[in-house]
Amino acid sequence: MAWDTEGTRRRLKEAATVEFAARGPDGTTMARIAERAGINKERLYKYFGDKQALFETVLSDELEKLAATVTLTGVGFEDIGEFAGRTFDYHAANPHLARLLLWEGLAGGPVPDEANRTAHYQRKVQAVAAAQRDGVLDDDLDPAHLVFLLIALAAWWFSVPQLAHMLTGADPDDPAEHARRRACAVRAAQRLALPSG
Amino acid sequence: MAWDTEGTRRRLKEAATVEFAARGPDGTTMARIAERAGINKERLYKYFGDKQALFETVLSDELEKLAATVTLTGVGFEDIGEFAGRTFDYHAANPHLARLLLWEGLAGGPVPDEANRTAHYQRKVQAVAAAQRDGVLDDDLDPAHLVFLLIALAAWWFSVPQLAHMLTGADPDDPAEHARRRACAVRAAQRLALPSG
Repeated sequence: MAWDTEGTRRRLKEAATVEFAARGPDGTTMARIAERAGINKERLYKYFGDKQALFETVLSDELEKLAATVTLTGVGFEDIGEFAGRTFDYHAANPHLARLLLWEGLAGGPVPDEANRTAHYQRKVQAVAAAQRDGVLDDDLDPAHLVFLLIALAAWWFSVPQLAHMLTGADPDDPAEHARRRACAVRAAQRLALPSG
Repeated sequence: MAWDTEGTRRRLKEAATVEFAARGPDGTTMARIAERAGINKERLYKYFGDKQALFETVLSDELEKLAATVTLTGVGFEDIGEFAGRTFDYHAANPHLARLLLWEGLAGGPVPDEANRTAHYQRKVQAVAAAQRDGVLDDDLDPAHLVFLLIALAAWWFSVPQLAHMLTGADPDDPAEHARRRACAVRAAQRLALPSG
């Protein structure tokens, strides 16, 4: 009987994503991940290395999915708001991602896949800087800082949901409030980035 | 010999703050907190109750310190940027606080001291709403959403420091970069909140 290697890998990675998002890398174990997948622990180590390597694989994969879905060039800088809006949509549909990034930040250790991720962000910063030089975006804020804050406008809702709840009194699963939050992220991004004139 | 009750309580709470900020409520134990303080574990339980109650005490105290230090009325809405700037300063000087809020959000359970905290935030929202009616602030964004995003502009740097590093390439402890980030938070708050005219 041939092993279904791809299927096994996929099941292990899905289980790892759920476990890491729920409990963070320090809060779970390789045994727990293997058990969730219903697959032998030795196979988990064989396919993905140790827990740190597995966390790196999971986070890199999730960030690649985000990068493939939400592009800056796809929306055009004239509607920079849609970049925030689509980032908001992505986080809403994939709540694992914000949690993985927060766990990573809290752990404070070496950043998985840092060179690739830095290059990805630097491309975004350079594109924003070019749009500022062209006058499509206001050059009031440093381009790297602007990209960082545009991400905040979209991701903060999913990072401290308890704070959003206390401020708005609203259930985040209420479709009307969800739409208002998205519209707010879009409008706020436009206010931050577009020339006011 | 009289017990130094206040000193003991303070040492226990300081140890709890450090442990909770470092590892989150799920990542540490009452025994570990007592050991860090160098005080008997039974005394920790006697003074603060169980781990959830202790986390609630620590978080409420830290939020009260923030609320006492950074007020909206103290700066005046004409310079809403200073609200973001002072919030930035507070987080920079007290890195525990953002971490405690993130752990709380990730845990996703009941929110400690929710009624008091909600009342505190609602007062902020009402003050912003009044300033919007008076035309001091732009009424483009919902007042609760605006307060939420103003906090984001200040706190996001301390929530995903790895992302700030990858985008800016800068060391957050570099005083020049620190000053640039603060100035960015101030300017961004003005752009979000003030009338553009």
